[in-house]
Amino acid sequence: MDVLTQSLMDSFDALLESVWFELTFLVVVALFAGFLFARFGQPKVIGYILIGVVIGPSLLGIIGPGEDPVDGVTNGVSPLPETIMMLAELGALVLLFMVGLECDLRKIYTRMSVSIAIGGVIVPWVGGFGVAYLAGYTIEAVFIGATLVATSVAVTASVMSEMGLVGKHISNAIVGAAVVDDILGMVVLSIAKGMGTGGGIDALGLALLIIGAVVFVVGGAWIGTRFLVRLVFDVQIRGYKRKLPLSGFTLALAIAFLYAFVSELIGISAIVGAFVAGTIFAGSALRDGIRKGTQYLEALFVPLFFVSLGVVVDLGAMWNTIILGVSLTAVAIVTKVVGCGLPAWLSGMSKWDSLAVGVGMAPRLEVALIIAYYGLSTQLIGADLYSVVVFMGLVTAIISAPVMKRVLVRGGHALEGI
Amino acid sequence: MDVLTQSLMDSFDALLESVWFELTFLVVVALFAGFLFARFGQPKVIGYILIGVVIGPSLLGIIGPGEDPVDGVTNGVSPLPETIMMLAELGALVLLFMVGLECDLRKIYTRMSVSIAIGGVIVPWVGGFGVAYLAGYTIEAVFIGATLVATSVAVTASVMSEMGLVGKHISNAIVGAAVVDDILGMVVLSIAKGMGTGGGIDALGLALLIIGAVVFVVGGAWIGTRFLVRLVFDVQIRGYKRKLPLSGFTLALAIAFLYAFVSELIGISAIVGAFVAGTIFAGSALRDGIRKGTQYLEALFVPLFFVSLGVVVDLGAMWNTIILGVSLTAVAIVTKVVGCGLPAWLSGMSKWDSLAVGVGMAPRLEVALIIAYYGLSTQLIGADLYSVVVFMGLVTAIISAPVMKRVLVRGGHALEGI
Repeated sequence: MDVLTQSLMDSFDALLESVWFELTFLVVVALFAGFLFARFGQPKVIGYILIGVVIGPSLLGIIGPGEDPVDGVTNGVSPLPETIMMLAELGALVLLFMVGLECDLRKIYTRMSVSIAIGGVIVPWVGGFGVAYLAGYTIEAVFIGATLVATSVAVTASVMSEMGLVGKHISNAIVGAAVVDDILGMVVLSIAKGMGTGGGIDALGLALLIIGAVVFVVGGAWIGTRFLVRLVFDVQIRGYKRKLPLSGFTLALAIAFLYAFVSELIGISAIVGAFVAGTIFAGSALRDGIRKGTQYLEALFVPLFFVSLGVVVDLGAMWNTIILGVSLTAVAIVTKVVGCGLPAWLSGMSKWDSLAVGVGMAPRLEVALIIAYYGLSTQLIGADLYSVVVFMGLVTAIISAPVMKRVLVRGGHALEGI
Repeated sequence: MDVLTQSLMDSFDALLESVWFELTFLVVVALFAGFLFARFGQPKVIGYILIGVVIGPSLLGIIGPGEDPVDGVTNGVSPLPETIMMLAELGALVLLFMVGLECDLRKIYTRMSVSIAIGGVIVPWVGGFGVAYLAGYTIEAVFIGATLVATSVAVTASVMSEMGLVGKHISNAIVGAAVVDDILGMVVLSIAKGMGTGGGIDALGLALLIIGAVVFVVGGAWIGTRFLVRLVFDVQIRGYKRKLPLSGFTLALAIAFLYAFVSELIGISAIVGAFVAGTIFAGSALRDGIRKGTQYLEALFVPLFFVSLGVVVDLGAMWNTIILGVSLTAVAIVTKVVGCGLPAWLSGMSKWDSLAVGVGMAPRLEVALIIAYYGLSTQLIGADLYSVVVFMGLVTAIISAPVMKRVLVRGGHALEGI
């Protein structure tokens, strides 16, 4: 780098010390990346993460590595300042809250989607654990298994919508199963976290954690649908009268924060709470209003979250672990094809449709990366394994749509947009 | 306090260390206070500030004083953690951005509203300076004068709407003048800030600052309306095509952050930039869409901002300076009645209507408190003067509506809701 470039970079670093400039910069590059990826028919989420990698210490170094502030559990690894990370974490809660809003727990429990989901949890977990264990990891292997559990609802839903499959049999099976996966993924995360922080497998602690997680998910959903929906509804009605029209929306978010807090308190991740809080409104008349408002928060904060995930990627570490990365990616795809495709086939789907379900369930992105980032920030896993998971997430998200299109066409479906 | 209470308080303190719990708590108490005040026909903003005082160190002490983190210019005085303050500051930007959205600079420059505004800037500034100067302050007196300049658009607009006056002659005059006041208030803030930080009145520095502020406001508005509105519009259109429907909204916010950064860079407050960014969309077709989205951010973050303003109020200091507080409040009301009422009367309004305009212009709240908080956080003024300004702001905001109703009825107006 010549002197001029260096001097320009230094000035830019000084600019970045203003939190408003940094925020402007991150939002604008995320927008740009989102557009670029949408232009080429790829999920915008991938664009956000990749632009984070580009501006992070691995490539351009516009963000970080900096002074490496170690001031909190979730910020110890990021070169972004704590204030920006707060907004990014808010983005993670908002994202999972919105995923929860789509999950009416009473409607998604069809026998087929549950059997697809269970197969798609157990097989990938075992597969992920196996690959990591063979690579010499032990406790971390439990964690890596957990990252393979949850299908990306964001990617899956956008692929279904692009192909014009929304509302059709195959789409319902995939999205329903992906949602059940998310819930099971949260439970698996809780378990992996408990095992990781314990430093070993303590049967009693594990049992307590599983019980705690199940009680929280079931109890939180029950209390929510039984009491909180009504409370929000009342506040909403009174708010209109008193010219505080968005009171119900604000209270719904406060409930998401409260659930996030409770889930942290019992030892599972804050995002599980936000997800459960979302599910309690999923079956209510309030859902559309809350979703409408939350999507504006989503538009601002969720890209920040994905960019912040990309910023911490260490490309050097990714290259050093490329064999493990490729192996994990292969296992991630095969285990979902087998674990989801087989139950679909046994439930009476055609061969090609079952294969399409398996391929459609393959993308792992937001939940996998949240789990991995959680592991990284709490030092349960290192930068190497984090990078492996990011590699797996990006590749599975990118290749799923084109492969699925071919499979569906072979199965005799007429698709839009191809 | 007995042992049980103390122990409960200690547990509560421990809970508050979770940022999600603190956020839940702040949002819920703000909602509660907003409802309570709306119930009694008072601006909800007053409820937010007062609940902040109640939970702050002065009364219940639920928030702070704590470890008193001194980690940034704007956070040195607040017992709230930096991450929560980031959200509160975002609330301040969102608030001023929304005020800006209402200010189509080309439409509000009627001769009457400008003459009312100018009278309502000069007379209160001189009055505020005089009171503080008589009380023994010098440089701080310039600052106190600045807090009396800007009428609260939030309070004024809600009072007009409650009385069913929106769109009528008197309401247009008041709201138009209040908006011009806001702009002049920003310029006055810049000047006061320059004089305060210089530690004395440096003619050259002051001239440069005024030029910088004027160039930024005029130039920022020009560049914005000339180029940025079109850019946002293009991004919005392309965003719809690419299934990124809120891209225009996100970019508009990024512009607000950018303008906030630029205004900090040239030495004026970040909120001025957010305000100017708002004005560039005020006359465009994008306004309603942006406002619709921003109000969801407002519902979440603006109450946090006002609560954070209340939390730093020191009731002891307020009581010690009660005489100055009452004097400043009296001066605040009289100077707007004279400074705005007289130009209105000279422009041909009836005696009672002119008086109503003066009373209607009396509330000073959000901008006054932002200016005062800025002064406090940069140590231009102390906790005593901050409390004096808060007292003045709350009292003028509370008494304006009932007094104005009486004046309007005397003037022969038929009002709604009384």
